[in-house]
Amino acid sequence: MAGERNPETAVVRHEVLHRGKVVDLFVDTIRLPSGKEAIREVVHHPGGVVAIPILDDGRVLLIRQFRYAPQKYILEFPAGKLDSGQPPLETMQRELEEETGYHSGDLRYVLSFHTSPGFCDEVIHLFTASDLTHAGQRLEEGEHILVESYSLEECLHMIRTGDIADAKTILGLLWHRFQNPDFL
Amino acid sequence: MAGERNPETAVVRHEVLHRGKVVDLFVDTIRLPSGKEAIREVVHHPGGVVAIPILDDGRVLLIRQFRYAPQKYILEFPAGKLDSGQPPLETMQRELEEETGYHSGDLRYVLSFHTSPGFCDEVIHLFTASDLTHAGQRLEEGEHILVESYSLEECLHMIRTGDIADAKTILGLLWHRFQNPDFL
Repeated sequence: MAGERNPETAVVRHEVLHRGKVVDLFVDTIRLPSGKEAIREVVHHPGGVVAIPILDDGRVLLIRQFRYAPQKYILEFPAGKLDSGQPPLETMQRELEEETGYHSGDLRYVLSFHTSPGFCDEVIHLFTASDLTHAGQRLEEGEHILVESYSLEECLHMIRTGDIADAKTILGLLWHRFQNPDFL
Repeated sequence: MAGERNPETAVVRHEVLHRGKVVDLFVDTIRLPSGKEAIREVVHHPGGVVAIPILDDGRVLLIRQFRYAPQKYILEFPAGKLDSGQPPLETMQRELEEETGYHSGDLRYVLSFHTSPGFCDEVIHLFTASDLTHAGQRLEEGEHILVESYSLEECLHMIRTGDIADAKTILGLLWHRFQNPDFL
């Protein structure tokens, strides 16, 4: 079927504009089936992980940290970038411990999603993290992270008010609510 | 409170690596409170809009199109990039008509979210689009878009199977389900 064919295979030129710490930037010139050329900007990202950390009483953990790109503090689930070679589950356990100070005895893969397929190849893997025990935060230099806990009902209210405005976090919260309709 | 202060204000160097059609790339060197320097890569995106198009019988419209960055066909809600000066609601109405061929008589703002705040400033505004009437697709050159319709139950199943794997689309579907718990 059409879904298996790539209509944009004719790459006329592939320019590497940047190879960076988090992202690379490529600009490809392609030839459309009509014969005309078009530009495709591609931000390459190694992919990431995010977890819904669920305390024994049902509250979830969120972290509040300054994000340089949007220039604001954002309330989000703990997350991290995949390092080459390290499995997503291990990366998630490490990032969860570093950012929230909690170890999960029950970390489970849920699903994966593209964050911005129009220009970026980033895929994020979502986990639930339960059976949490506190071990203490281990932050990298320059990281300032506040750990907060809220009931699911409070989180859903904060989605409505805009206090939670991070896509992976909203997606995770709504998924958690969908899986646990009687949890409130 | 801490949430109102920017701990990364000391920009030592601001490099513009790319000004493009969809994104710009900046690389900033900043000074951390400790005195050490650090790099912040920023992908600048003008922001976008996405709609949940709801047919009178409750089915929703999804479009299937090839996305160059992840190099695959992706099933997603109709969406588009904001053009400077044009209000999000107008952009959404135009993109909805171009991509799906449907005009919405009842287009409503729902909420906004950051797609990837770790490296990008993109914000997407989510709408619901109901009272749909068919007018015909108007695609740009090089756009090949299949329009498909599914029940909400089918969509939720496709999230589980990975056939729907786009963050804004999963978020929109779960939000729609959350708002209409008895809709299935």
